[in-house]
Amino acid sequence: MAARYDFASDNVAGAMPEAIEALIAANQGFASGYGTDHVSRRAADLIRALLDVDAEVRFVASGTAANSLVLAALAAPHEAVICHDDSHIATDETGAPGFFGSGVGLVTLPGASGRIDPAALARTLAEPEVSYRQSPAAISLTNTTEYGALYSEAGAAALLGAAKERGLKAHLDGARLANAAAGGFPLRRLAGMGFDVVIMGGTKAGSTPSEAIVLVDRTLARRFDARMKHAGQLVSKGRYVAAPWIGMLETGAWQTRAAHANAMARKLAARMPFPILHPVESNAVFVEMDEPTLQRLYAQGWQVYRFLDGSVRFMCSWATTDEAVEALAAALKQVA
Amino acid sequence: MAARYDFASDNVAGAMPEAIEALIAANQGFASGYGTDHVSRRAADLIRALLDVDAEVRFVASGTAANSLVLAALAAPHEAVICHDDSHIATDETGAPGFFGSGVGLVTLPGASGRIDPAALARTLAEPEVSYRQSPAAISLTNTTEYGALYSEAGAAALLGAAKERGLKAHLDGARLANAAAGGFPLRRLAGMGFDVVIMGGTKAGSTPSEAIVLVDRTLARRFDARMKHAGQLVSKGRYVAAPWIGMLETGAWQTRAAHANAMARKLAARMPFPILHPVESNAVFVEMDEPTLQRLYAQGWQVYRFLDGSVRFMCSWATTDEAVEALAAALKQVA
Amino acid sequence: MAARYDFASDNVAGAMPEAIEALIAANQGFASGYGTDHVSRRAADLIRALLDVDAEVRFVASGTAANSLVLAALAAPHEAVICHDDSHIATDETGAPGFFGSGVGLVTLPGASGRIDPAALARTLAEPEVSYRQSPAAISLTNTTEYGALYSEAGAAALLGAAKERGLKAHLDGARLANAAAGGFPLRRLAGMGFDVVIMGGTKAGSTPSEAIVLVDRTLARRFDARMKHAGQLVSKGRYVAAPWIGMLETGAWQTRAAHANAMARKLAARMPFPILHPVESNAVFVEMDEPTLQRLYAQGWQVYRFLDGSVRFMCSWATTDEAVEALAAALKQVA
Amino acid sequence: MAARYDFASDNVAGAMPEAIEALIAANQGFASGYGTDHVSRRAADLIRALLDVDAEVRFVASGTAANSLVLAALAAPHEAVICHDDSHIATDETGAPGFFGSGVGLVTLPGASGRIDPAALARTLAEPEVSYRQSPAAISLTNTTEYGALYSEAGAAALLGAAKERGLKAHLDGARLANAAAGGFPLRRLAGMGFDVVIMGGTKAGSTPSEAIVLVDRTLARRFDARMKHAGQLVSKGRYVAAPWIGMLETGAWQTRAAHANAMARKLAARMPFPILHPVESNAVFVEMDEPTLQRLYAQGWQVYRFLDGSVRFMCSWATTDEAVEALAAALKQVA
Repeated sequence: MAARYDFASDNVAGAMPEAIEALIAANQGFASGYGTDHVSRRAADLIRALLDVDAEVRFVASGTAANSLVLAALAAPHEAVICHDDSHIATDETGAPGFFGSGVGLVTLPGASGRIDPAALARTLAEPEVSYRQSPAAISLTNTTEYGALYSEAGAAALLGAAKERGLKAHLDGARLANAAAGGFPLRRLAGMGFDVVIMGGTKAGSTPSEAIVLVDRTLARRFDARMKHAGQLVSKGRYVAAPWIGMLETGAWQTRAAHANAMARKLAARMPFPILHPVESNAVFVEMDEPTLQRLYAQGWQVYRFLDGSVRFMCSWATTDEAVEALAAALKQVA
Repeated sequence: MAARYDFASDNVAGAMPEAIEALIAANQGFASGYGTDHVSRRAADLIRALLDVDAEVRFVASGTAANSLVLAALAAPHEAVICHDDSHIATDETGAPGFFGSGVGLVTLPGASGRIDPAALARTLAEPEVSYRQSPAAISLTNTTEYGALYSEAGAAALLGAAKERGLKAHLDGARLANAAAGGFPLRRLAGMGFDVVIMGGTKAGSTPSEAIVLVDRTLARRFDARMKHAGQLVSKGRYVAAPWIGMLETGAWQTRAAHANAMARKLAARMPFPILHPVESNAVFVEMDEPTLQRLYAQGWQVYRFLDGSVRFMCSWATTDEAVEALAAALKQVA
Repeated sequence: MAARYDFASDNVAGAMPEAIEALIAANQGFASGYGTDHVSRRAADLIRALLDVDAEVRFVASGTAANSLVLAALAAPHEAVICHDDSHIATDETGAPGFFGSGVGLVTLPGASGRIDPAALARTLAEPEVSYRQSPAAISLTNTTEYGALYSEAGAAALLGAAKERGLKAHLDGARLANAAAGGFPLRRLAGMGFDVVIMGGTKAGSTPSEAIVLVDRTLARRFDARMKHAGQLVSKGRYVAAPWIGMLETGAWQTRAAHANAMARKLAARMPFPILHPVESNAVFVEMDEPTLQRLYAQGWQVYRFLDGSVRFMCSWATTDEAVEALAAALKQVA
Repeated sequence: MAARYDFASDNVAGAMPEAIEALIAANQGFASGYGTDHVSRRAADLIRALLDVDAEVRFVASGTAANSLVLAALAAPHEAVICHDDSHIATDETGAPGFFGSGVGLVTLPGASGRIDPAALARTLAEPEVSYRQSPAAISLTNTTEYGALYSEAGAAALLGAAKERGLKAHLDGARLANAAAGGFPLRRLAGMGFDVVIMGGTKAGSTPSEAIVLVDRTLARRFDARMKHAGQLVSKGRYVAAPWIGMLETGAWQTRAAHANAMARKLAARMPFPILHPVESNAVFVEMDEPTLQRLYAQGWQVYRFLDGSVRFMCSWATTDEAVEALAAALKQVA
């Protein structure tokens, strides 16, 4: 039986046609290097328009790199970044923030479904500074969260407000910002909420490898290209990293295809025979499933992951089909 | 007058059709992530076959990252890498080796046309180790060199032999390895010459951003994926970084198009009205040109660079046309 | 009322006479620099004799630096070090291991009274390696632990045995090794237990700032002086960092004065009106004390700390007097 | 014949009586840790008074660490520090600035006798910023220089003025600031000249290992203790690193003994049979000496170094005696 990766992650899908077509269109003639080209400029313009913000924009091929690059700009090595216990930067990036940030620390906080608990944040912010601990210089939110939950504008703004009162900077890991936007998170309010930097995910939304670094606080842009080059993140043929965004944003597909992914998750949730453990607010369904059952599902070829909290995760993407949901639902029913 | 970037660098060209077609072909269905996919495996197989070596192969989007990642694996932070005074790692990567290597040092040596002078190497290797200097742990050669010159097999082997006698490891910056191969550098002898790691350039050869890291010394491969992820260099949709290699290697275009670039350089050299300062052994022509003349050339729209040694550089690529060479030759004649 | 720091920590005490006298004795004539002097050699000989091991020995002024320097030698940046949840390297060194190790990770494990739980270690060692996590390359034990508990030889050997079976290296944070030795931990068995590196604490034992780095695995000593210099840890007048060890070891005071500190803790424990929360196996007493009571104690001038687990810590040192214990006991009785 | 290290360096001397006596005096009673003690406060007060500046002051045991810690605070990893070709940070610290600064670059400039050539600085400051080079963020001067020469107030101010016009920060490596002060460099004008940070050398002046970090720009002091701890530079028993300064400054010995060292160098210069290659403005004499002659000198037991520029260096210190100068002069006469 052939392995089926459809629901293993949203990065197992290929690239959407709009992204590929834009990439092909960018493959014309000569262009200046290192992100100074016309393609990168156009993609940046589209992002500024979408977010309604006069930000500097850069493109890199890895979300881990995007997050780490900017966290190193927001916190000194002897400082720390506040994030959720199960955030990607804390659990899935092989310590990359510490590498880019020369040992910068992470202060991880609990919270239901990947959203930082405001009371936990308040306690952390109230702690006295001591020389033998890394005091926080920034806060990082992830939207949608690792558990597919959505921060509301008010929820994000409240956390950022508390953090900024103490002088912290704010970072948004938006690897799944398209899904958040499709779920109602207002893109044009990101600056207003207080984010200094937004990582806007292309890859999981359906691009070839590309993430946009949106420097809302433009003072961070000083020598940022040198920072990228120094960290091996400024590719010479930059147009190929930027191009997919033109296709995805000019057509609106970045968001409409995320809406499709979200809808597929809701559909799967509706057919789910196992207890659902997190709110289905985007493109993921997390369920309770014992190990023998999961093994039976594996035996049928379905590749999925048991996640950090012990739940089993099913991810939908722009490429998820009705048929795939039906097939999975049937398999789940059978193994249940 | 429109700017013409044709000869500014070999990274201003787009991607060759063979690369783009393979990229499109890779955009089918679902695939596992982080370089474990079938596309990455196929590309690695092709490289192993081409180099006749049982190496581990990885793909990254940046040559700077490729070089730095492996140099950090070859030398500890308190050690150094020997390289040429004008090598890319020493002059054009914004200190990236020091970033990846936590302050690893570079010991730069002179040598005509970018080739390390054997006598200078011998002197450096003979120096006593002292605690207040970073002693060398590796040597890095670049072929073709920054000045378009070619190391012969014997020339490379002699340098590596001297270095390895002292226990150093050896790295090849092959950003233009295709041009070197087209110029006669025997790819199947790389392991025999003593290289522990080879960076095989895709980008300048005509790929979308992609460089292959060839770990000839397989012991370096232990936890190398984690090393890449930690450094923000392991993209989730790895197939798009690997795919172009399939097209370029299955068709032989990686090397035949480099041969074209080399031929264009020879053609340009034959028409060159200015003194040529370095042997034209690959796709570059370096000439003596005073500043007023260069300004007249700029005024005609031709974008080229004055290089580290004061010469003016003209780079050809897979995309350089006869017409472009003619047009440039005419312009040069006019400003001379 | 004057503040009394006697029980705040064992590093609030001054230096014992034996240490100061040796320092004065070392202040004669000229000496070669950077640890190559006769004083450093003599101190290293004494340590090798005490531990019965043919190790390389170096001296630094900071325990944090000593730990971090060697952890960076034992684990690559993309790897991790296993340690206790409340170990000094994880909680009290401002992220120094990550700084020295360029983002090296820590995998922290639970265990009663600061001793790593063997079952937790077994689970961690059994985890599959994945590229998105930092896999362990070393284990760090602390003896005595942060809670004043003692690893037995068998207890330490069992943990190290399990770790070494998986290829890990082993580090001993012996900031309070003198107290452990005085408590029965056999110094001449350290190599046999499997430690590759031992940090032997001078400062808390009663020295001016000095910690000995004992490289049991001599292969780690290659270019170690350069590693130290690169990290700002190789002082030119090295004799002053090494000298106190001569006085402390020639007289046996390093251990006999630690025995005194341990005895003072037992005496304090015997007079303690509050519940004791950890075994009193060395120079610390940890008790349950509510906040109003602690504030009353503070009001009497006694400086002590509420520790990571919520208990209140009283530390004895070589300089703790019977009178101080009596005075503290009286104060405790009064506030109880 | 016994080796004589007297003139090998100024760090082969022991500690002056004033330093040792202050250290002994500090060894009384209990004191709070990590530089918060009364001894550190008193030493800092004396330095502020001497320099007539309201700076934050910290103490570390290594000059390499002192320099690197603050350079990492002045320049980001993707930036560079301008310094002299032969400056200590560039040539004698095993790459420590790159380690502390996560790959921060050095731009080294020529200049006679270790003083940066103003024209070379002007050229560097005029270079356009490009993403593939590390652009300067700070400048570092050394006074006295590596060649024993002295910057005048006007000379230093002119270099700093040019640098600060471009927004750079300024660092003084004052490992031999005592010798500079004794030579006429006005300590109370350091802030006026534009230095943001001054490293004030204790060790070479005749202390046990201690260097003072003077943060003239007090904004750099924010979380500086955490920065030190993170880098393994905040020792718990801080009083022992600070104490010698009390003795050296209360008595004026820090400067008067440097004046003695300078006088010894002048005396040696007056007796020198070899050509003197650098101005004798402090405690060093650099001469031209061929290798056979140097070997004859070595054969007589005199330990000195052939320096970066090929000259042979003789260093005087607080401990240099008239008799030693006579003995060396006699030996030089004999081998000449």
